[in-house]
Amino acid sequence: MYTFENELKPIIGITMGDPAGIGPEISVKALNNSYIYDLCRPLIIGDASVISANVKFGNPTFKINRIDDVSQSQFSFGTIDVFDLANVNMQELEHGRVSAMAGNAAFEAVKKVIELALDRQVDATVTGPINKESINLAGHQFSGHTEIYAYFTSTEKYAMLLVLENLRVIHVSTHVSLRQSCDLVKTDRILEVIQLLDHACRQFGVDNPKIGVAGLNPHAGDGGLFGNEEETEIRPAIIKANELGILAEGPVPADTLFSKAKGGFYDGCVAMFHDQGHIPFKLEGFIWDEENDRMESVQGVNITLGLPIIRSSVDHGTAFEIAGKGVASADALLLAIEYAVKMAQNKSKKI
Amino acid sequence: MYTFENELKPIIGITMGDPAGIGPEISVKALNNSYIYDLCRPLIIGDASVISANVKFGNPTFKINRIDDVSQSQFSFGTIDVFDLANVNMQELEHGRVSAMAGNAAFEAVKKVIELALDRQVDATVTGPINKESINLAGHQFSGHTEIYAYFTSTEKYAMLLVLENLRVIHVSTHVSLRQSCDLVKTDRILEVIQLLDHACRQFGVDNPKIGVAGLNPHAGDGGLFGNEEETEIRPAIIKANELGILAEGPVPADTLFSKAKGGFYDGCVAMFHDQGHIPFKLEGFIWDEENDRMESVQGVNITLGLPIIRSSVDHGTAFEIAGKGVASADALLLAIEYAVKMAQNKSKKI
Repeated sequence: MYTFENELKPIIGITMGDPAGIGPEISVKALNNSYIYDLCRPLIIGDASVISANVKFGNPTFKINRIDDVSQSQFSFGTIDVFDLANVNMQELEHGRVSAMAGNAAFEAVKKVIELALDRQVDATVTGPINKESINLAGHQFSGHTEIYAYFTSTEKYAMLLVLENLRVIHVSTHVSLRQSCDLVKTDRILEVIQLLDHACRQFGVDNPKIGVAGLNPHAGDGGLFGNEEETEIRPAIIKANELGILAEGPVPADTLFSKAKGGFYDGCVAMFHDQGHIPFKLEGFIWDEENDRMESVQGVNITLGLPIIRSSVDHGTAFEIAGKGVASADALLLAIEYAVKMAQNKSKKI
Repeated sequence: MYTFENELKPIIGITMGDPAGIGPEISVKALNNSYIYDLCRPLIIGDASVISANVKFGNPTFKINRIDDVSQSQFSFGTIDVFDLANVNMQELEHGRVSAMAGNAAFEAVKKVIELALDRQVDATVTGPINKESINLAGHQFSGHTEIYAYFTSTEKYAMLLVLENLRVIHVSTHVSLRQSCDLVKTDRILEVIQLLDHACRQFGVDNPKIGVAGLNPHAGDGGLFGNEEETEIRPAIIKANELGILAEGPVPADTLFSKAKGGFYDGCVAMFHDQGHIPFKLEGFIWDEENDRMESVQGVNITLGLPIIRSSVDHGTAFEIAGKGVASADALLLAIEYAVKMAQNKSKKI
């Protein structure tokens, strides 16, 4: 059912994530919002039986269109198009359990969506949550999506960007020890992520973004009193970025940078290590529900920058503890789809 | 004007902070709240001329009672008792300027209040913001209040606790480089701060506090994949704390610990380094006012644990950029006074 209007909208490939987690449920719930079909042409990549079993959590009257080629998609609200990899045995699937079968199904969906994006059959990719242990059990040695994308797109220079309202935080390093992250605070890498962030902010529609670059040490080193990476590595990167016309400033003490960014002072922030960026981000996006003893609202989008294709994702995990219960929120996935659309629309635009 | 009721209330010594900053203004504003006099017997330590010049920012009809002995205090709402150190030349004082005179006045007030507390003339101390540069210009080589208190009370084992609503965060280390803070993540020190935090929570009225201990590395090391301090140093401290009857748990990934604590899951948190605790704390307590290009609401209390005397403080700085303008908020100081009162009341109680 291609219409002229439809063809102007980007095709978004959404992986279902680990079938034992909340990924399939939130995919179905997300596609229960008609405005998503106004924005784009969405398509789920995964196992059609798993998606069928989750339709009850969205609108039980919705149909499944099982396809093995993107051209067979209907892109019509009320029918969920599933690029069926038929790799889950429903008899064996158990919610909340680590398994090679679930890990393999999750991995294959990611691999397929990358392939479709590289082949330009989809305009952008959005990933559901996977379980690292299951992926590894299935024999795929990756620490997460970012590494899988980097591998299959042969990308060396990439970075993780977290987005939530005013907070847009890119990371100099992510999954390394804190000691190693200190060693990775290097001028070239910092300049690289400043440039990636500047470009991404423009893709999101921010002209001339103002970028705050964090210090590594407390009080940004306090004039060299507690560490000198601010002077030897960070400031030179900021100066070079300024020479390139980028409105970067800092090093800003990390404990005020994010308060200012939250208030709108910065359009983007550069975090020197994983937790420096993830702590403020999760404090804003995750709300602990004390009564029910669980994270209630998990918002925020994770975007991999530097790839030849577009990838956004929810920033929460598989939430095994609530999988299959119908209580998961699709808010973060909806936001991830919206960001993927925005980036796809601006991809061809010269920024 | 001692009354029987008055004598049951703790005497709180409040230093005015750097006279070139907002300290004197917020002291006067705080004592413009009659409920403070219901809670305690407050007394400002500083220069009486400076306080006089700031009376206009509170209630211009308030009187100043200039004293040189605590027994001369009136402790009566409407009259501000000032233990006068007479060490500021008002002709030379300039708001927002670093100077040896201002630094010395700020320092002398801190030294005096410690002396009064050690001598049991005041029951607890509350400090206004000082400027490190001015203090050092005046020849006093300290990096902050905590170090001054430790020195003059000969204390070796102390820790910084930040308090704001549900967040109570103690730090394993503070003013050292990030690299050095990794070296300071040691079982003995972690156990020490867990015990200090447990005791402080009880002083604040929390029975059997639940304490969340952060990991050092991303994902708390992810099973040793990114660093092993979680297993070699942090977990052993938690086990020992449990053996002592303390309800501590972890290591919890730092990027979820504070979300859970904010939601009420933990009564207290142990941060492994300065920014790990300060980032979430300041994100909650500091609100950037984009329109007026300044931090609008700066809340949160800083408490030094492990001292023989009680010390609480505002957690914000001298705010030189708005000093003398009458726009500073006394909210954090009011909260600091309330915490000092609570700790003074529970000091003698066996917890």
